[in-house]
Amino acid sequence: MRIAMLGTGIVGRALAAELARRGDEVVLGTRDASQPHSEELAELLGEHSTITLRSFADAVTDAELVVLAIGGDHALDVIAAAGPDALDGKVLIDLSNPLDFSNGYPPTLSVCNTTSLGEQIQAAAPGARVVKTLNTVNVAVMTDPAGVGAGEHDLFLCGNDEGAKRHVEAFLAERFGWQSFLDLGDITMARGTEMYMPLWLRVRAALGTSNFNVRVVR
Amino acid sequence: MRIAMLGTGIVGRALAAELARRGDEVVLGTRDASQPHSEELAELLGEHSTITLRSFADAVTDAELVVLAIGGDHALDVIAAAGPDALDGKVLIDLSNPLDFSNGYPPTLSVCNTTSLGEQIQAAAPGARVVKTLNTVNVAVMTDPAGVGAGEHDLFLCGNDEGAKRHVEAFLAERFGWQSFLDLGDITMARGTEMYMPLWLRVRAALGTSNFNVRVVR
Repeated sequence: MRIAMLGTGIVGRALAAELARRGDEVVLGTRDASQPHSEELAELLGEHSTITLRSFADAVTDAELVVLAIGGDHALDVIAAAGPDALDGKVLIDLSNPLDFSNGYPPTLSVCNTTSLGEQIQAAAPGARVVKTLNTVNVAVMTDPAGVGAGEHDLFLCGNDEGAKRHVEAFLAERFGWQSFLDLGDITMARGTEMYMPLWLRVRAALGTSNFNVRVVR
Repeated sequence: MRIAMLGTGIVGRALAAELARRGDEVVLGTRDASQPHSEELAELLGEHSTITLRSFADAVTDAELVVLAIGGDHALDVIAAAGPDALDGKVLIDLSNPLDFSNGYPPTLSVCNTTSLGEQIQAAAPGARVVKTLNTVNVAVMTDPAGVGAGEHDLFLCGNDEGAKRHVEAFLAERFGWQSFLDLGDITMARGTEMYMPLWLRVRAALGTSNFNVRVVR
C-alpha cells in the first residue's frame, strides 16, 4: 500500500520502517524534502529503498492512506501544508497528542476538555476521513502489540466515518496483529483519548517503561 | 472502624451500606443533619443502626478515616464545612471528580490540566493526609472489584503521604478485596486520574455498562 507518513520524528520514522518491512511503500512527508534533515532520517532512507522523502503536499497526492505522526504543536500546520483539499476522501490516521512541554515535565495539554486536536484536525480538513487512534500507546506497542500482555489489550479509536474506522481496524490487525479495538464513537471522543495522556505519562513513570497498554475488563 | 462519609448521594450511601455490612461504624456527614433529606437516606438509616447522620463537622470529629464522597462541585465547600483543622492528621480518601454538567452530557471538567481537584482539596486542608483513589471506578466496582475481570485490574492512587497510601491500600484490600494498586506518586498525579474521566465516560457509553475497570498490561 502507498502510505503517506506526515512527520519524520521518532514515531514517523519507526512506523515508516515497520511498514516498509511489511511491504508498504512509504512516502515520508517533511517541510523541506531537498535533503534529510537528520542523521537518523538519512540512515532510514539508506536502509529502505521503498521509503522516499517528499514535501507534505507531494506525500499525500497519491497516498492510499495518510498517517499524521507529528507532535501536536505542529499538527495543524502540517495539515495546512499538505493541503486540506488533497486529503478529501482519504483515510487519515491521527495519532498526535496535544502535548505542551513549554511549562516543563510532565507536559500539559495545549487543547482539552471542550475540544480536542482530533476535532481541530477534522475541522481543518473537512473532507478527510479522520480516524483518531494509536495515540494511547507508544510506537513499540503500536507496531508490536503482542509484545505486551500477549496482545490482550485494547486500542481505542474514534472518528465520524464508520467505513474509515473499519478500514483502519483491518489495516492494524493485518499489519501489526492488533486484536482488540474499542470504537468510542465520533471524533469528539478524541477528547477522551487525548485527555488520557496525563494518566498515561504518570503510569509510565510509575512502571518505568513506555511499553504498556490498558485492557478494559468487565 | 469509625468512618466519616462526607456525602449522602448515591456513592456515599452505597459505600456506607457496604462498610456497615462489614462491621464499620459510619457517620454520614451532611449539610443539615436534623433529618434525612431523601427517602433513600431515611431507608438506609432505618436499615443500619451503625450508620448515623451528623453535620460535616461532627462527622469528622472522632473519625479514624474520612471519605470524601461528593460531587466535585461541592467538594471544597464540604471541606470548609467539615473544618480543615479538624482534618489535621487524618487520612482522607478523596474519590471526587470535577465533573461539570452545566454544558450537558458528557460533562466537561471544572478543573484540569494545570491543577486538579485533589490538589485543591489538599491545599484546602493542608494537615489532612489526602489519598486520591477510587475515582476511576463506579461504586459497584469500588466495593466488589472481583465482580469484574475476576478482580484482576488496577486501582490508581496518589497522595503526598506514603503512610496514608499504604494504610488506604490495606483498608481497601481488607474490606473489599482489592488486589492490585498502582501508586502514581504525589497529589499532583490526581490530574492524571481526574483527566481519565472523559475517557471513562466514553468507554462506559461504548460498553453500555459502568461496571468495568482497566488493567495495565506490559
